[in-house]
Amino acid sequence: MQNFNFVNPTRIVFGKGNVPKIGAEAAKAGRKALLVYGGGSIKKNGVYAAVTAALKQNGVDFVEHPGVKPNPVLSHVREGIKKALADGCDLIVAAGGGSVIDESKAIAAGAKYSGDVWDFFCGKAGIKEALPLFTVLTLPATGSEMNSGCVVTNEEKAQKYSAHGAALFPRVSVLDPETTLTLPRAQVANGAVDALAHLIESYFTTADRDVAVTDEIVHALARSVIASTRRILKDPADYAARASMMWTATLALNGLASCGYGGTSFPNHAIEHSLSALYDIAHGAGLAVVMPAWFKWHLRKAGPERLEKFGAAVFGTKDAGAAIAAFESFFREAGAPVRLSEAGIPAADIPRVAENALGLMQMWGMSYTRAEVEEVLKLAA
Amino acid sequence: MQNFNFVNPTRIVFGKGNVPKIGAEAAKAGRKALLVYGGGSIKKNGVYAAVTAALKQNGVDFVEHPGVKPNPVLSHVREGIKKALADGCDLIVAAGGGSVIDESKAIAAGAKYSGDVWDFFCGKAGIKEALPLFTVLTLPATGSEMNSGCVVTNEEKAQKYSAHGAALFPRVSVLDPETTLTLPRAQVANGAVDALAHLIESYFTTADRDVAVTDEIVHALARSVIASTRRILKDPADYAARASMMWTATLALNGLASCGYGGTSFPNHAIEHSLSALYDIAHGAGLAVVMPAWFKWHLRKAGPERLEKFGAAVFGTKDAGAAIAAFESFFREAGAPVRLSEAGIPAADIPRVAENALGLMQMWGMSYTRAEVEEVLKLAA
Repeated sequence: MQNFNFVNPTRIVFGKGNVPKIGAEAAKAGRKALLVYGGGSIKKNGVYAAVTAALKQNGVDFVEHPGVKPNPVLSHVREGIKKALADGCDLIVAAGGGSVIDESKAIAAGAKYSGDVWDFFCGKAGIKEALPLFTVLTLPATGSEMNSGCVVTNEEKAQKYSAHGAALFPRVSVLDPETTLTLPRAQVANGAVDALAHLIESYFTTADRDVAVTDEIVHALARSVIASTRRILKDPADYAARASMMWTATLALNGLASCGYGGTSFPNHAIEHSLSALYDIAHGAGLAVVMPAWFKWHLRKAGPERLEKFGAAVFGTKDAGAAIAAFESFFREAGAPVRLSEAGIPAADIPRVAENALGLMQMWGMSYTRAEVEEVLKLAA
Repeated sequence: MQNFNFVNPTRIVFGKGNVPKIGAEAAKAGRKALLVYGGGSIKKNGVYAAVTAALKQNGVDFVEHPGVKPNPVLSHVREGIKKALADGCDLIVAAGGGSVIDESKAIAAGAKYSGDVWDFFCGKAGIKEALPLFTVLTLPATGSEMNSGCVVTNEEKAQKYSAHGAALFPRVSVLDPETTLTLPRAQVANGAVDALAHLIESYFTTADRDVAVTDEIVHALARSVIASTRRILKDPADYAARASMMWTATLALNGLASCGYGGTSFPNHAIEHSLSALYDIAHGAGLAVVMPAWFKWHLRKAGPERLEKFGAAVFGTKDAGAAIAAFESFFREAGAPVRLSEAGIPAADIPRVAENALGLMQMWGMSYTRAEVEEVLKLAA
């Protein structure tokens, strides 16, 4: 078990009927909010009405910043920063999924920085402060509601990069599973794949394989993702399954699932970020394509040990190959693509994707060669 | 899954060689510390030397408050409060196990309160503020290093009661597993029993039995306690097992293992508190006596469902009776007593213990009758 630091100050308000609580919480931090949201699903499911009413009732004025894309883009982040500054916003309220929260984090940091916000993503500057952030989560997937990272795509450069900083932890996140009851099936699948992806990266790349407690936690959360997703696919109105999935996805990337692992990296995410930077593909769908291929590559490179352990604990499989097959089978069952072709990405583009991924891998301190990334992608063809 | 709030602001600094980091952390909060510790084991294992050197190096003056008992007593808490006030302490550094941290919390709250500190324990007052607390943990067991509760015994009244308040969360807790390498075997056993006890209370008393993610986490942490303890008993120098146990015990009572359960209570703790309020018995040893008996009572009262589920996931057992036997067998294996007689408590005292327990149960909102508590205790005879 390697040395680690753990702290996570985000307050979680979890459960049905809790969306209006965001108003009183936000009022503790300021008087004028930038209200960030996406394509308008929150107007259909009642979240917009509940959040705006709660802000008004608690004396928090707000200006709206709608239109966040599923993979949030830098130009829209910059618009949000301008709006927050022009309107004198002293806090941000994000209502939506991980993309909305990620964009909100970028705006929160950018509004407190004199330079260009992309500096935080390309490694030119560190985040020292940010506007206080409050979130109402409507899609269990990214974990952004309880961590200090965010991912934004620079459309001009076709770079989907991340930024991190303790100032980005949301002050309060409201997680009401009822807001997820109407999610389209594809988003259920993508969320499940994303949560699993967060669980496997550190587990499979750790240089220390004697971290019993964190292995147990990763297995536990992975089992919960899979069991909850199966229940949701069977009965979308299953509140307890929705709730279990929502809290599991949060815990999958709040720091808990990597404590004590050392020398870890996020290769599946790096490769997937290239897919969704270059193509119109959901993050979860891209991960479902990359992961089985990366596992096959990992098996050749690092041997069967981790796959055997994970597979036995999570899928009840007996060897590494069966574990990979079980992942793939679960992704298919959920309705996610598991090959580049199924996601509409031609094999001929592999060199271009690899080139793009290498830039991010370098940023994230990974030592993959171009040949290695292409090898992974060919296994996804 | 029931609605819940979760927040835990304590920063954990985990791993070998980290004890000196307490100095710089403490220096962020004040200039004069009350240094609280117990019977002097920290002088043998190097923790005292490391902590005092680190405080000096970081310009934090300190006054010592040694002599905390294994079940910390109110009179010593009051002495600590007087000392902290007389010497103008603006922070507290606790170095030791859960008893030292619990007493430090009581002192921290008492030093900021004009009335008597026992008011917080008997329900007469709520904790509004406290001196900032920094801990160096040397015994994995109680979880006090990352929660907002504390337990103190009022010797005059023979009441072992608890107090809670957000102000009691330690600011920073340093967990260095190397400080546990020299723990006596009995303390290893008591710590393991205590951590398991924290995991089972909410799991077995929840009114909501469809909380899949938290069930998974409880199973995961329980497996980790048992596996780590077995490794430690076999090889006390096994660092990875010590580390896994230390982090597991922290997670077992930091709020994570009860999220989403509703209507829970701590009956095993209430009964055990009476044992250690009335007799000279370690908390873990008392719990090892109470738990098998309470499980037998619970099986009669609530049926086999939870025992079957927990047993299958943690012990690989097939029915409720086998699960209880597996608990008992693990406690025996660790060297803990599992009957009142083995702990030196005569069966004739059962009415007296039950009487004492009922007081705390009432405080904690449990509706056990005297006959029920006696029934549990008779099963421990």
